[in-house]
Amino acid sequence: MPRQGFVTSITHQSENFPEWYNDVVLKAELADYSPVRGCMIIRPYGYAIWESMQRELDRHIKATGHSNVYFPLFVPKSLLEKEAAHVEGFNPQVAWVTHAGGKALDEWLAIRPTSEAIIADSVKDWIQSYRDLPLLMNIWNNVVRWELRTRLFLRTTEFLWQEAHTFHATEEEAVAEVKTGLDCYEKVAEEWLAIPVVKGRKTESEKFPGAEFTWCIEAMMRDKKALQAGTSHMLGQNFARAAGIEFLDRDNVRKNPYGTSWGFSTRMVGATVMAHGDDSGLVLPPNVAPVQVVIVPIFRKEEEKAAVAAAIDRFQAALAETPEGKAVRVQVDWRDESPGFKYNHWELRGVPFRLEIGPRDVASGQATVVKRVDRSKEPVPLDRLAAELPARLRAYQAELLGRARDFRDANTHRVDTYDELKQGLEGEGGFFLAPWCGDAKCERQVNEETGATIRCIPFDSPAETGKCMVCGSASERRVLFARAY
Amino acid sequence: MPRQGFVTSITHQSENFPEWYNDVVLKAELADYSPVRGCMIIRPYGYAIWESMQRELDRHIKATGHSNVYFPLFVPKSLLEKEAAHVEGFNPQVAWVTHAGGKALDEWLAIRPTSEAIIADSVKDWIQSYRDLPLLMNIWNNVVRWELRTRLFLRTTEFLWQEAHTFHATEEEAVAEVKTGLDCYEKVAEEWLAIPVVKGRKTESEKFPGAEFTWCIEAMMRDKKALQAGTSHMLGQNFARAAGIEFLDRDNVRKNPYGTSWGFSTRMVGATVMAHGDDSGLVLPPNVAPVQVVIVPIFRKEEEKAAVAAAIDRFQAALAETPEGKAVRVQVDWRDESPGFKYNHWELRGVPFRLEIGPRDVASGQATVVKRVDRSKEPVPLDRLAAELPARLRAYQAELLGRARDFRDANTHRVDTYDELKQGLEGEGGFFLAPWCGDAKCERQVNEETGATIRCIPFDSPAETGKCMVCGSASERRVLFARAY
Repeated sequence: MPRQGFVTSITHQSENFPEWYNDVVLKAELADYSPVRGCMIIRPYGYAIWESMQRELDRHIKATGHSNVYFPLFVPKSLLEKEAAHVEGFNPQVAWVTHAGGKALDEWLAIRPTSEAIIADSVKDWIQSYRDLPLLMNIWNNVVRWELRTRLFLRTTEFLWQEAHTFHATEEEAVAEVKTGLDCYEKVAEEWLAIPVVKGRKTESEKFPGAEFTWCIEAMMRDKKALQAGTSHMLGQNFARAAGIEFLDRDNVRKNPYGTSWGFSTRMVGATVMAHGDDSGLVLPPNVAPVQVVIVPIFRKEEEKAAVAAAIDRFQAALAETPEGKAVRVQVDWRDESPGFKYNHWELRGVPFRLEIGPRDVASGQATVVKRVDRSKEPVPLDRLAAELPARLRAYQAELLGRARDFRDANTHRVDTYDELKQGLEGEGGFFLAPWCGDAKCERQVNEETGATIRCIPFDSPAETGKCMVCGSASERRVLFARAY
Repeated sequence: MPRQGFVTSITHQSENFPEWYNDVVLKAELADYSPVRGCMIIRPYGYAIWESMQRELDRHIKATGHSNVYFPLFVPKSLLEKEAAHVEGFNPQVAWVTHAGGKALDEWLAIRPTSEAIIADSVKDWIQSYRDLPLLMNIWNNVVRWELRTRLFLRTTEFLWQEAHTFHATEEEAVAEVKTGLDCYEKVAEEWLAIPVVKGRKTESEKFPGAEFTWCIEAMMRDKKALQAGTSHMLGQNFARAAGIEFLDRDNVRKNPYGTSWGFSTRMVGATVMAHGDDSGLVLPPNVAPVQVVIVPIFRKEEEKAAVAAAIDRFQAALAETPEGKAVRVQVDWRDESPGFKYNHWELRGVPFRLEIGPRDVASGQATVVKRVDRSKEPVPLDRLAAELPARLRAYQAELLGRARDFRDANTHRVDTYDELKQGLEGEGGFFLAPWCGDAKCERQVNEETGATIRCIPFDSPAETGKCMVCGSASERRVLFARAY
């Protein structure tokens, strides 16, 4: 007995955004809780989304000259402690292996919270001359940071990511590399995930422990909160000096190389959920959608079923005739369930296009095309649809990016006083561009009193003489305040 | 000043195979030792080889209906201990996290040595009905087994692998799945890595801890020793029962599903080195070679250099004109080093074809093609070469598989007595097909006295009445004895 119009109940987005998010992640089967505190299980649909962005980012990373490598999961305690700021930043979050092979270890081993320390120590022998530079490496791996409060994808004790680590002969080259990393992230966020981002520099208090400076991309979610979507760090000579890495430069002088590192993680699956989703569930950009088009056959009698099946076969054959059409990820849902059940099932999973094909459609040689994002319905001749589908998917991808950009722009406000910021945060929320003096004290005060942080000093924030909204001292440009994930 | 005919000194393969292996892995820059005991660093050239076999295996795994997923790195102690044989097999090798987030943990967490235990506990909620089966999952991850003696790629404390985990409603389906896994491995080994394998069943003492039975593929290395190249396990209902996984079957009876698991690891990079390499270093199958063709320009004067460069450009343009030609991975070595230095450099790295192009070649429109495996030299017109290169790479791939198969067959011997086995092992070595009664006592005696183990009971070993070479009891078929990695 097929289930009739069964509605998967998820919390409304506007009612309770965090609950909506959890419902979507669990019920669309992206991920599940695990028996280990703070660690998640990534299920097939969620992992396919991760693999898609991973493949795309890997393509950019390789195209910019980086090679994939692997470094150990373990960082001996003595190595982790070599760079002072680094250890101070990460030590409270480290998980320690103390026993192995039936014995207590002489030296405790950290599960890597990030790999700067072990890499700096390992590459000493590889970097002897300026000819060995730049050294451009990337690692796809898992890292562990003991978090008190965790959320599926967004903040988990263990997460998957990519961490690039590079070494350069000059400071200029290293700064250019920090930009290369950030550009890769911007492209994946905007072109692949349809998430527009603000590029900028983190404040001193928000930078990576051990870095000279950190650049980032920040995105707005549907609840108008910010999410840090990728960071790229200028490490200067800090780690190289701590580990004793030296190379003989062109001028015959021994020098420490300059390092960078940059990372992008599975939290971007969560960002994709929160940047596009609605009350019915996921809204996936076609580039990243495991299923781009779902076909729901509609029929009552057996001969109707046969006619609908034949029409679907013809459509799929027509689609397979071009390389672009062949690449479209189509699924036909022949399950023994009602059409309404299937509509809900695939809407929850964010599939961009649904094609409804019933006996009347077969008779008129068409299908009803339903767009997930606005639920618009349009009858389209099947022949034309097969030819147009790749272009329609591209247009849908662009539409999602435009929609997210419009949403962000409409919810980004210039405020000049602290009161305006507070009112804005308590009211509609959003991004707030406000003058700030550069003092960490004012930054901390805002955070403690409002929960908002400085997300970044945007690169496109023009020089603008003003007064810090907190203390009234001189401000040189506006910075971006928001509550964040 | 270019280095003249610099020879990278590596130990001769015939002199000391283990040293030859280490020299090749380190000097071809496949991998390096790390500051963490027993853990390795995989360098760009080695990682590219791993990525190639990973991509190919992933393709087979997905084509047979499996989905990639992710499960946590940690296995709580109580979960690891649920399946009795499993914990007994793995406990001595486990690394334990006992402190995290600045505190001692209430329950110790194992770094996964393999994921059966955590998966069995996690999927309980997903498997309710026969409709939820089969559940076909695969994971690409890192695992840790505390090893006393380690060797780069072959046996490391941490290694990368793929572990598939599946659940089925019936025993028959699970057995068919064990075969599916083994077939995937056979295809990657033979078609991708050009390593011929013997398929068979492990003896009771060699099977996976917690399994009903284990199937494997075994390969012969150039020193005639065996290497286990992949295993596929029938778990029966053991883990499901221990974890309390139950589903409602078609007949309305609650049952435990049947499980399988199968794994393939970075040790296959080491197998590729040892199955094909020679005194000059690596010999890579084209499918897996990061560089398939290296072009070494030969010139003295600047105008010669220009003419050679122009010929190389024309050749590369011709190659890029077909989709197949475009996909050939070509590198031109313009470094300021002598040709001899470059020949050694790329021979060490196992590049299948070297093209030498000098002024005289330009004049006659040809290149000297040098095949890595037999060092044969052949002048070939450049136009023809561009058209033929994809086919030549395929032929080279087939040649390596044939060469490895001939080598294995020539070194596989039928022996009927224990003395013959001992003489064979002490003499030329190789694979030995010998009659065995099936008793673990005889198996252990051979291992203790000769160092050889039963690699498998080959599937193609015909029924043959004989006498166990150790105890003289009845033997039903020959089994495969060898010393192994």
